Order: sequence, then C-alpha cells, then structure tokens
Amino acid sequence: MIDFRPVGYIIGLVVAAIGASMVLPMMADLAAGNDEAGVFLEAAVVTILTGGLIALASANSVSGRMENRQLFLLTTMVWVVLPLFGAIPFMRGATDASFTDAYFEAMSGVTTTGATVFVGLDDLPAGILLWRSMLQWFGGVGIIVVAMAFLPELRVGGMQIFRSEAFETDGKVLPRAAEIASRISIVYVGLTIACVLSYLASGFTWFHAVNHALTTVSTGGFSTHDASFGNYQGAPEYVASVFMVLASLPFVRYVQILAGSALPFYRDVQIRAYFWLIALLIAVMTAYRLLANGDHFTHALREATFNITSIITGTGYASVDYQLWGPFPVVLFFFIGLIGGCAGSTCCSVKIFRYQILIAAIATQIRRIHSPNGVFQIRYGGQTLTEDVLSSVTAFLTLFFVSLGVFSVLLSATGLDFVTSVSGAATAIANVGPGLGPIIGPAGNFSTLNDMAKWILTFAMLCGRLELMVVFVLFTSRFWRG
Amino acid sequence: MIDFRPVGYIIGLVVAAIGASMVLPMMADLAAGNDEAGVFLEAAVVTILTGGLIALASANSVSGRMENRQLFLLTTMVWVVLPLFGAIPFMRGATDASFTDAYFEAMSGVTTTGATVFVGLDDLPAGILLWRSMLQWFGGVGIIVVAMAFLPELRVGGMQIFRSEAFETDGKVLPRAAEIASRISIVYVGLTIACVLSYLASGFTWFHAVNHALTTVSTGGFSTHDASFGNYQGAPEYVASVFMVLASLPFVRYVQILAGSALPFYRDVQIRAYFWLIALLIAVMTAYRLLANGDHFTHALREATFNITSIITGTGYASVDYQLWGPFPVVLFFFIGLIGGCAGSTCCSVKIFRYQILIAAIATQIRRIHSPNGVFQIRYGGQTLTEDVLSSVTAFLTLFFVSLGVFSVLLSATGLDFVTSVSGAATAIANVGPGLGPIIGPAGNFSTLNDMAKWILTFAMLCGRLELMVVFVLFTSRFWRG
Ligand SMILES: [K+]
Ligand SMILES: [K+]
Repeated sequence: MIDFRPVGYIIGLVVAAIGASMVLPMMADLAAGNDEAGVFLEAAVVTILTGGLIALASANSVSGRMENRQLFLLTTMVWVVLPLFGAIPFMRGATDASFTDAYFEAMSGVTTTGATVFVGLDDLPAGILLWRSMLQWFGGVGIIVVAMAFLPELRVGGMQIFRSEAFETDGKVLPRAAEIASRISIVYVGLTIACVLSYLASGFTWFHAVNHALTTVSTGGFSTHDASFGNYQGAPEYVASVFMVLASLPFVRYVQILAGSALPFYRDVQIRAYFWLIALLIAVMTAYRLLANGDHFTHALREATFNITSIITGTGYASVDYQLWGPFPVVLFFFIGLIGGCAGSTCCSVKIFRYQILIAAIATQIRRIHSPNGVFQIRYGGQTLTEDVLSSVTAFLTLFFVSLGVFSVLLSATGLDFVTSVSGAATAIANVGPGLGPIIGPAGNFSTLNDMAKWILTFAMLCGRLELMVVFVLFTSRFWRG
Repeated sequence: MIDFRPVGYIIGLVVAAIGASMVLPMMADLAAGNDEAGVFLEAAVVTILTGGLIALASANSVSGRMENRQLFLLTTMVWVVLPLFGAIPFMRGATDASFTDAYFEAMSGVTTTGATVFVGLDDLPAGILLWRSMLQWFGGVGIIVVAMAFLPELRVGGMQIFRSEAFETDGKVLPRAAEIASRISIVYVGLTIACVLSYLASGFTWFHAVNHALTTVSTGGFSTHDASFGNYQGAPEYVASVFMVLASLPFVRYVQILAGSALPFYRDVQIRAYFWLIALLIAVMTAYRLLANGDHFTHALREATFNITSIITGTGYASVDYQLWGPFPVVLFFFIGLIGGCAGSTCCSVKIFRYQILIAAIATQIRRIHSPNGVFQIRYGGQTLTEDVLSSVTAFLTLFFVSLGVFSVLLSATGLDFVTSVSGAATAIANVGPGLGPIIGPAGNFSTLNDMAKWILTFAMLCGRLELMVVFVLFTSRFWRG
C-alpha cells in the first residue's frame, strides 16, 4: 500500500503557494482599474484554504523520505491538481470559460505548451493575461526541478546519466530537491529579469514585457496578443530568440557558472550539438526564403531565426503564418518540433541528448557490424552507457512515437482531419503549442475543437511534459501492487 | 580493400537469371497476339549477355566465403542493379516510360512496394503487366532469403535473434543461403499456386489470377487494374486477405511444418500477437463503419478485413478509397502502415517482433523502476536479449523515424504538400504502396509527381526494403576503410 500522506502534504503546500500567488493578478487588475480583482481574491481564498487543509490532513507522517512510487505519484498529481485551481479564474473571470476550456488552458500553462482556447487575448483584463503567463512560469521552474531531482532517481527516459551532476547533496531526495529548487530559482529569476529588461529596451510596455518574459524563459509561448509575436516584428524577435535559446540550455550549467566554473558549459556535448543544429536550420530556412520566396536577406534571416528558435525550443511563439511560405517550411517545422532542446531545461519533446545517445547506438552498431568479434560500448559525453540507460532511452522513444500514433488516431476519431490530428497530437506531446493546418496552425488556435479533442490533448500535454513514462507507470498494475 | 569479384559474380548470375525469366512475358505477349513480344526478346538478350559477362569477368575468385562487407554490398547492389534491367521493358515497350519512371516502377516492383507511375493499366499489353508482377514476386522471395540468411549474420535490426532458427546448416554463408533459398522456394511456389487456384475459383480469369497471385504472396500490391481490387469486390477480397496474411508470416515456420513439426508455428509469439492485432483492428474498423457510416455488417466486415489486411501486411491493394470513410480511417491506416507484418516474410516496415522487443524493454524498465536494486533482463520469446540486440533494434527504430523525417522534408522541398510528403515518405520506407491525399492516396497514383520526388521515393523504397542499416552502412567511411 502506498502511503499517500507525504504526497498529499507536498501537493497541499504547492496548491496553497499557487493560491497565494493569485494576489499578483489581483493587483494587476486593481492597477488596471477593471472590476476583475474580486475573481482572483475569491480564487486565492479557495485555493489557499483547500491547499492548507490538504497539507494539514496529511501532515502527520512527514519524514522527508519518499519511495520511488510516491515520487511518481507526487509528480503526476502536481501537474493534474494545479490546473484544477489554475482553472478557477478562467471559469469565474472575464473569459467565462467552461470547465473543459479552463482546464485545457491551465494545463497548457503548467505544461508550458502554450496552446490556447481563448480568442481576443488583446482585450482580456490584465489579471487573466498575467495569470496565464504565471502558470507557464511556475510550470517551467517546476519541470526543471523534477528533471534534475526526480527523473534521474526514477531512471526515466535515460535521465539517470545526469544523476551525479553538479549537486553533491547526497542523501534524501526531498532535501535534495529543495536545494536544487533554490539554486535553480536564482538562475530562473535572474534570467526572467534580464528578459523583462531586454523586452523593455526593445519597445515593449511594462505589462507586455513581463508577460512575455514569463512565457519566454519557461519556453511556454502564451502571448498577450492573438497575433502572438506578429505585433513585435523586428528587434524583439532577436531578443526573444536569444532568451528562448538561453532558456532551453541545461540549467545546471548556469548554476555551475555562478559557482565559478564555466568549463562544464563549454564542454557540454549536448549544448555544442544543439548550437550547431540551430545554426544549420536557420541557414537552411534563410536560404529557402531567399531562393524560393525571393525574400530580402535581413528579413529572411530574422524571420527564420525567430521561428526556427521558437519551434526547436518548443516555445511556440509565431511572428508570421509560416504555412504561407510553402510546403517545405510546414514539413520542416513539424519535424523540428519533434527534436526539442536540452535536458534539464524547460524544453520538452525528444531532446538533443536522446538523439545523441541514439546516434551513438547506431555508430556502435556499425562498429560491431564492421568487427563482429570486437567489444564496443556505447559512449556519450565521456561516459560509458549501461544497458539500463539505453533501454530507458529506447523505452522513451517507443512511447513517444506510439503515443503520437495513438493520440493522433483518437483525435481523428473525434472528427478532426489528418493534418489537425497528427500535428495536434505532436504539438501536445512535445509541448510546442501551435499545430499545422487552418484550425490549430500558427495563425489559428484551439478554441473551435470539440470537447473530447480538448480532453485528449490535455492528457497528451500531461503525458508529454512528464516524459510519458512517469504517467504511464501509474497505469500499470505492478505500480499499485505490494 | 574490398574484393568486388565474388559480389560481381553473384550479381551477374542473378541478372542473367532475371534476363532468362523475360521469356515468360514474351510468351504472354505472343499468346495475347500483340506486337510487344520483341521488346522482351531484346531485353532478355541484353540482360542475359550483360549478366553473363559480369559473372564471367568476376568468376576467378569464387570461394563461397564472403566477409560481411561483401554481403552488405551484394545485398544493396542486387536491389540497385536488378531494377536497371527490370526497367528496360518499361522504357522500350508500350508504356514508353522515361528512365525515371521505368526505374521507379521497377524499384517499386523488386522492393514489393507497389506504388505505380503507370495509368491505364487495364489497357497495357499482357507482357508488361506480367513483368510488373514478376518483379514483385522475385523481390519477395529475394528478401526472405536475405532476411533469413544474411541479416542475422550482419546483425541488422535485431534480426540476429533469428540466427539459430530452423536451418542448422552451419558453415559458409553462401551455401547456407542457397539451402535456405531452395527450401523457401518450395513454400513460396506452393503458396503462389494455391493463391492462383483460389483466385480462379473466385472468378478471376487465368491471366489476372496469376498476376494477382504473384503480387499477393509477395505482399507487393501491383494490380492489373487502375482500380486495384475495386474490380473484385466480394469473395475475392476474403481470398486475398487470407493469402496476404499467410504471406506475412515467418516462412521458416512453413518450412518446419513441411518437415513435420508444426509446434514452432503454434508457439511463435510473433504470430500470435500479429493475429490478435489484426483481429482487433478489423473489429475496430468494422464497428466504426457500422456506427459512423451506417454501413451493413457483412459489407463493413468485408471491406474492413480486406483493407486492414492489405495495409498491415504492406501489400497495398485497395478495394475502395477509404479516405471517403472519414478522417479516423485515414489516420488509422497511416499508422497501421508503420506496424508491418512478421520478420522472415516479404513484409517491410517496423514489424511485429520489433514492437514486441520494444514493449519488453518498456516492461523491463518498469520492473527496474519498481525494484531499483533488482536485476532484470529483457526477454523475448523465451530468450534473453543481449545488449547487442536491443541496441540494433534501437538503431533500426531511430533510423526508421529519422528517415521518415528526412525523406518527408526532402519531398516537401520539391513542392509536395504536407500530407503527400509525409505519407509518401512513410509508404515508400515501409514498402506499403499507396499514400494519403488526392495525389498518391488509394485512389491515386505516383505518375504526376516531379522527377526529383520520384528519385527520392525510389531511394526511400530501397532503404526501407533493406532495413535501412544495410544501405546506410555503405555511406560510412568506416565501411570502405581497412
Ligand atoms: K510551448
Ligand atoms: K506493397
């Protein structure tokens, strides 16, 4: 039997903290002089009370020790429960959303997906807009902590190769997580402030600078405008590109730099491959725009840089409808969304390090084919990979593509066409945001989908954000036995 | 330095044999009384002479021993060179095809893909139609021999788990291949004859029965009609379904049954899972047709059985344009094409046993998560899988999905839309045949594509048929060194 109390205790505290943070959108509404502040006060009271009660009811068995099953449950429950409370302002406030829409939007927030069911963003009250951005910001820092503190312990998706990195706080997992959270938060807050200031310098108003900074450093992609970055063509696109890339690097490297050692950053094979890949993709897309569309170089380079960066980091901002560029960009952007950024960041999707491990497996296989009697081991970034790592990366890859197929088929069963079903499933699992086609493409949104499709996508976002295996394990009978 | 002569010798013999087989379409044209027989006589002379000369020129170093690199080269060269000669009748005969079209059609034949660039099949002379069918039939038996004799030796795609099966003819690989080929041929010819007789019994003319039998047992899918099986709705659909399934089972099991032991067939975990999967998919599709389209049960069951079987076996016949059934069948058929039949048959795509190994890897990973200190090994069909097997299955899966992405992007760069590019790449790599959309869908064909797209698809068919790694290895510098 699993002891749910330690799980409940932490979830209660997190819920209460989220409730307390609702004071910020309340203040934004008060400052904007609209009559929406009451919604957030009400939501804050309900959320803080509920969270507090859950924590109190579960408080009598806290030891700081958690077994793996409790960590799996905790991680999944946090991402299931937070959107419940995050959805309250969407239902009670100016958006007047149904529970389906409100939960979808909140899940799209905390998973940093950035797919939206709201139309007319530019006219929404300040509080609601800020709340959407804050959900992404919390979701972003939350996933970094999970990726660095929990997933290596849980041997999910090959993350165990990052187990020994940076934080030598051996011992119990929860104090370790707290230590990681506090160090990461410094970096995360610092990056956010730098991003706010940079957006301000490039012409944003304070409000829009803050909102976009919150959704940039979390690679979330919610915007305060229906046109996303269409309102900010020019210098802001480069500013956003820089911060999207910074936010998609392994945060442990920043912590190490702050501790005085920049060497691991420069030696990180994941970062190096990632930079080369981004440069290559930008060059290809710029060349295409020049040759196929007859675009100007500076214009082509800027749009290519911004939109390629937006998709590979999984942020999902759009400054133009790149579907108008022709079929090549459409197909390329679809597959770029299946790459993703670096592990230990806010990025989702398959991620660079897994492709590197898979390529290493292929290279090793070629060596074995060449010298059938030789003994070759798969190596990555200077370490020899155990069979355990390879098999969990393989499990991830299999789950990723099988999920893509299953979610696509389920979406099509609700009546969505091929392009919407397949790109919708992909963008949800990879937490990118926009799909393809006229409905959910970069110029569209998710508002017109049927409720069943929205729930399928909501579940897909959850599974993708938690590296599939974390959620999947809960559906095995083995998990609940013994 | 690789010694090309043993490779050249075998290729020369195979080419000469294919040339000799051109007498059959010549006789078909003579019997039909058209004036096309000369084309095949001419092609036969050229092909036999060229093949004979290649064989003679390479004959002075035949020892029956081949190193692995020669086997890789031989396998790839057979599938590159045969379509060159197979294309001659398409260029010189009634189809009057360009080299691009003729080579595409011949490659689509020998890889058992079944995508066609010819329109007006019903009006083509008998010889050309028979030649298309024969190319698939030869390609089918060829790939079984490669899959059973070469791939386990070459450790490609996890096929090494089938190394010890059935044929205890230890020793040199070529005598072993010859032994396998002769035993498999008995089964293959027997199955073909049974298929011809069954088609005859269900109302086919002799000519169409033979042609469709040749492309059924090879799961190739070329038809003698533009409407494919649209002309044979009713009982023939069930006949075809039975033989497509029989052709997609491991042929080694038939050889064992002929040798008096049926037990391995009944105990084969791959076959069992495959049957369950087919039954499930037919049930789902029948239910969908009843509920969503208001179809009659017998009609729905028949169309579901035939079209599901056709896609999962990778045959690619179509009896209706299932794109008219709604988006759900379209998306489902797309992903079914990425499953494939059993290893050791004429089927391509990922194949059942790889999914079983991948699922076993996931299950093992869940066990490890549950008991972090336990030692668990990945098992499949009663044997423990080595890290070598897992890593080569992983390499296959990675190559498969990365190739799908790369070929899709390349196709889109020639101007094809998203659906055509992605489904075209998938159907070529998986050797299924039809894609999706109005152009290359089940009601369309590949004739209107641009030449560059045809060459990309031709290469994709080759790569997919040879399990990707066989071709891919040739592009590594390591292969040519030493
Ligand atoms: K996103
Ligand atoms: K086929």
